[in-house]
Amino acid sequence: MTVPMVKKPDAQSFVTEITPRSQDFSKWYVDVVRRAELADYSPVKGCMVIRPYGYAIWELIQRALDARIKATGHVNAYFPLFIPNSLLMREAAHVEGFAPQVAYVTHGGGEELEEKLVVRPTSEAIIGTMYAKWVQSWRDLPILINQWANVVRWEKVTRPFLRTTEFLWQEGHTAHETEPEAEEETLKILHLYKDVLETEMAVPVVEGQKSESEKFAGALRTYSIEALMGDGRALQAGTSHNLGQNFAKAFDITFQARDKSVQHVWGTSWGMTTRLIGAAIMVHGDDSGLVLPPRIAPYQVAIVPIGKDDWRETVLPRAEAVRRDLVAAGLRVTLDARDERPGWKFAEWEMRGVPLRLEIGPKDIEKGSVMLARRDTREKLAAPMAGLPARIADLLERIQQELLDRATRFRDEHTQRVASYDQFRQAMDGRPGFVIAPWCGAAACEAQIKADTQATIRNMPIGGAAPSGPCIRCDNEAAAEAWFAKSY
Amino acid sequence: MTVPMVKKPDAQSFVTEITPRSQDFSKWYVDVVRRAELADYSPVKGCMVIRPYGYAIWELIQRALDARIKATGHVNAYFPLFIPNSLLMREAAHVEGFAPQVAYVTHGGGEELEEKLVVRPTSEAIIGTMYAKWVQSWRDLPILINQWANVVRWEKVTRPFLRTTEFLWQEGHTAHETEPEAEEETLKILHLYKDVLETEMAVPVVEGQKSESEKFAGALRTYSIEALMGDGRALQAGTSHNLGQNFAKAFDITFQARDKSVQHVWGTSWGMTTRLIGAAIMVHGDDSGLVLPPRIAPYQVAIVPIGKDDWRETVLPRAEAVRRDLVAAGLRVTLDARDERPGWKFAEWEMRGVPLRLEIGPKDIEKGSVMLARRDTREKLAAPMAGLPARIADLLERIQQELLDRATRFRDEHTQRVASYDQFRQAMDGRPGFVIAPWCGAAACEAQIKADTQATIRNMPIGGAAPSGPCIRCDNEAAAEAWFAKSY
Repeated sequence: MTVPMVKKPDAQSFVTEITPRSQDFSKWYVDVVRRAELADYSPVKGCMVIRPYGYAIWELIQRALDARIKATGHVNAYFPLFIPNSLLMREAAHVEGFAPQVAYVTHGGGEELEEKLVVRPTSEAIIGTMYAKWVQSWRDLPILINQWANVVRWEKVTRPFLRTTEFLWQEGHTAHETEPEAEEETLKILHLYKDVLETEMAVPVVEGQKSESEKFAGALRTYSIEALMGDGRALQAGTSHNLGQNFAKAFDITFQARDKSVQHVWGTSWGMTTRLIGAAIMVHGDDSGLVLPPRIAPYQVAIVPIGKDDWRETVLPRAEAVRRDLVAAGLRVTLDARDERPGWKFAEWEMRGVPLRLEIGPKDIEKGSVMLARRDTREKLAAPMAGLPARIADLLERIQQELLDRATRFRDEHTQRVASYDQFRQAMDGRPGFVIAPWCGAAACEAQIKADTQATIRNMPIGGAAPSGPCIRCDNEAAAEAWFAKSY
Repeated sequence: MTVPMVKKPDAQSFVTEITPRSQDFSKWYVDVVRRAELADYSPVKGCMVIRPYGYAIWELIQRALDARIKATGHVNAYFPLFIPNSLLMREAAHVEGFAPQVAYVTHGGGEELEEKLVVRPTSEAIIGTMYAKWVQSWRDLPILINQWANVVRWEKVTRPFLRTTEFLWQEGHTAHETEPEAEEETLKILHLYKDVLETEMAVPVVEGQKSESEKFAGALRTYSIEALMGDGRALQAGTSHNLGQNFAKAFDITFQARDKSVQHVWGTSWGMTTRLIGAAIMVHGDDSGLVLPPRIAPYQVAIVPIGKDDWRETVLPRAEAVRRDLVAAGLRVTLDARDERPGWKFAEWEMRGVPLRLEIGPKDIEKGSVMLARRDTREKLAAPMAGLPARIADLLERIQQELLDRATRFRDEHTQRVASYDQFRQAMDGRPGFVIAPWCGAAACEAQIKADTQATIRNMPIGGAAPSGPCIRCDNEAAAEAWFAKSY
C-alpha cells in the first residue's frame, strides 16, 4: 500500500513547532492532530474531517479488526442510518441514556415527516427490529452480525478523534439461545479487542467490568478495555455489552426453543471507534509529534535521499531501487523526492511518526549501505543494502514490541494500590494514572469519589483479586477491587 | 474468506418459488433480492437493510474498486455526514438539483439548531469548503481524494439496491491546476469504472457523455457507463463529472498559479454505489435466482455431501478435506453440512447464485473424483480429486469470461440503429434495449422523445461515429449519435 499525501510543500504549511507535551498535553494533542494532517475541523459544529493520513491509520486498524471479527464467525451487514423515534423509545434505559444526545431529522423531500427520525447514535433499536423478523427457531441462532458505520451523538465539548458529534465505528450485534452463550460472546469480543490494541497498536489495556453507573444504556453488564494515555488519564478503548434479554423483550425477538417453548433471545453488542487513533497518538507520541507503531503506520519507512545539487541524478535512482525492493517485500514505503532540504524532510517524517527513516547518500552508495533512524528511540544504525528488506522487517517487528513494552512499563509505573481514602486523594491529586482500591459497590460512594477527585471507576478486572480491604471511602465491606482514573 | 450466513433451515423460510423472469421481471427481481437474503425492507421508509450475503458481494466490489482507486494515486478520507444548509446553497445548479431530495436535521442535543443541517446527498459542498482551506499554491495540486460513505436522497418510489433513500457509495473529489488535467481525470475514472464492471462483474458497459439535461447538478460535463439489464432496460452504473470551475467559484477554491496569478481549481467528482449489486442480479440472474460472477461471489463453490444415512461419518470428513484444499488455494468455499436433503441444498445454492456446486458421495470417493455443476450453464462434469483446486480455479475463470461474453452478446443483440422516428418508436415499443439514433442536441427533442416513448438518452459514446443522418425527431442536423433506452 502506498499513501501519497496531499502535497503541501509551502514552508509555512509545515509548522514544525508543536506545543511540548509536558507543557500542555491537550494543546500538544491538537497540534499533533492538525500538523500531522490526521484531521481538521469542519464547518459543521462538533464534526471533524479525517484527512488521508489519519484515514490510512483507520484503514489499517479496520483491516486488522475486521479480519478478527470474521475469523470468529461474524459477518458484516448494513442497517439504515435513520431510526424511527418510536423504535428508539422502546427500551426504557436505552432511551434515557441516548435521547439527550440524538439528532433528529424532521423534514425530507420537501415535507415535514409524520414521525421524526433519529440519526443512529447506535443501532440496537433498528437491528433488534430486524432480528425480530429474522429469528423464528433456535436453528436461526446465533446471529453474529457486525456493521461498519458512522454514528451521531450530540456533544457539547469535542476533541478530534476522542469525542466528536459524528464518528466512525464498528458495532457488533449478536443474538443467542442462552445466557451463557451471550456471556461467552461478550467476553470473546473483549479479548479480541484487547488483542487488537496490544498486537496492532502496541497499547496495553486492562480488561474489566464497568460499574452499574457506567454501563451501556440498556445492557445487563458492560465490559471495557481501558488504556492509559501519556498524561496519566485513562481512555476507554472498546466496550462489549451483555444485553441480557432487555432488547429482546423491548423488540420482541423471540424464538421457538428446542423444548418448543417460546423464548426471548440473549443479546450482545460491542464497538470500537475512530477514537482509537487518538489513543495511538496519546500513548506513543512525543514532543516531535506522532510515533506510530509499525503495524498501523501508513508508511513504515520514509526514504530521504541526501546529496549535493545533483542528487536527482546520482542518488535518486538508487533510492528508487531501494523503495521498489522494500515495497516488493510487502512494506509500506514513501520516497521523499521533493525539492526540500533533507533536514526539513527529517522533521516532517518525524512529526508524522514514520517508524523508520532511511537515509541514502553518495557515501552510503559507495559503501553499499544505508542509514536507518528509528523514530521511537532516535537510534541510528548503518545497514548493508544486501538483505535490507528482511532486516527492516525484523527491525519493525522489534520496534512494535518495544513500543508495547515501553507503554506497558509506563502504565505499570503509573498504577498503584492504595489502602486509605487520604492516600487515594493524594494519588489522584499528585500523580495521575490508575489507582486500584477496594470499593463497596454503592453508586453513592462512586459518585462521591468522583466529586472529590474527578476519578471514575474505569473497570473491575474479571476474575480479579479479592478486595484487599474495606471500601476506600465508606469502610463498608468491599465488593471488588476497582481501577480508578481520571479519564477522557 | 468464508461468509457463514445466518442459519435459516426451517422449510418455510426457503421459499423456492421465484416469479419467473419472463412473467414479471420486477417481481422476479424483488423475489431474488429477498429470497437470496441480499436485502430486506426496514421500518424506515425507503431504506433497506443490506443482509450479510448482499453485503459480502458489496465488500468484494469495494475491494476491487478501492484497489484500483488507490493504484491510480488516490487516497481515502472521511468528511462529515452533515452539511450546513447555507453551504449546499452556494452552487446554484447544485441546489436546484438536490434541494428537493434532501433530509434536514433540525434538532440536536435537545435543542433546535440555529441552522438546519442537510444529511449529505453528495459531498461537493462540504469537501469544496475544506479544499478552499487546504489549497494555496499550485504545489498543493492535484488533490485526489475518495470517500466511502452513506448518502441520503429522499425518494418517492424505491427499489432495493436500485433506488433507496439511503445508499452506500464511494465518491471521489479531485482538484487540478488545469482544465485538461481535470478532463483527463474524469475520463481515467470512467475507464476505471468500466474495467470494474467488465472484469469483476462481467457486465459490459457503454461509456459516453450525458446530455445537458441528464448531467450532474453543477457539472460542466457528466460521463457515464450504462449497462443493459435482462429486461432490456438500461442502468446507469457509474458517473464521472468534470465540474469545471463551478464549485471552485462557489466555494472559493483558489491557488497561486505558476505564473503567480490567482486561479480557481478545476474539479471532478465521481461515484459508484450499491446499485451495482442490482446490476449483477439483473444482468446474470435467471428463473432459479441469482447467478453470480465468480469474482464477486461470496462463495465460489458450495460443497454438498451426498450419501446414505451415515453420510456424516462416511462422506463428510472427505468433503471437509476438499473444502480445506480449496480454501488453501484461495477459493471462497462453503460446505453445507446441514441436516437437509441434497436436492434441497442444490436448490438453495442455485438460488443464491454460487458459480459451482461440488457434489461428493460414496461413489465419487471410490472413484477419487467429485461432480461439479456449473450454475450458469447447468453443465455437470466429473473431476478427479487430484489437482482439483487448480482445475476449479480455471473453471471459475472460464465462467467469469463466459458470463461476460453472454451478457455482451445479449447487449449486442438488443442494440440497434434506426434511421427514422417511426422505426425508433417501433423499436422502443416492441423490443427494448439500446436504440442508437442521431440527435440534434436540443433539449426539446430529447424531452419529446421521452414523452413519446419513455426513452432517454443514456449517453453519447466518446469519440463515437459521426451522426449517420439528421436528428431522428426533428430532421435538423444531428450533433451526435445518442444511445437511447428505457432505464432504471
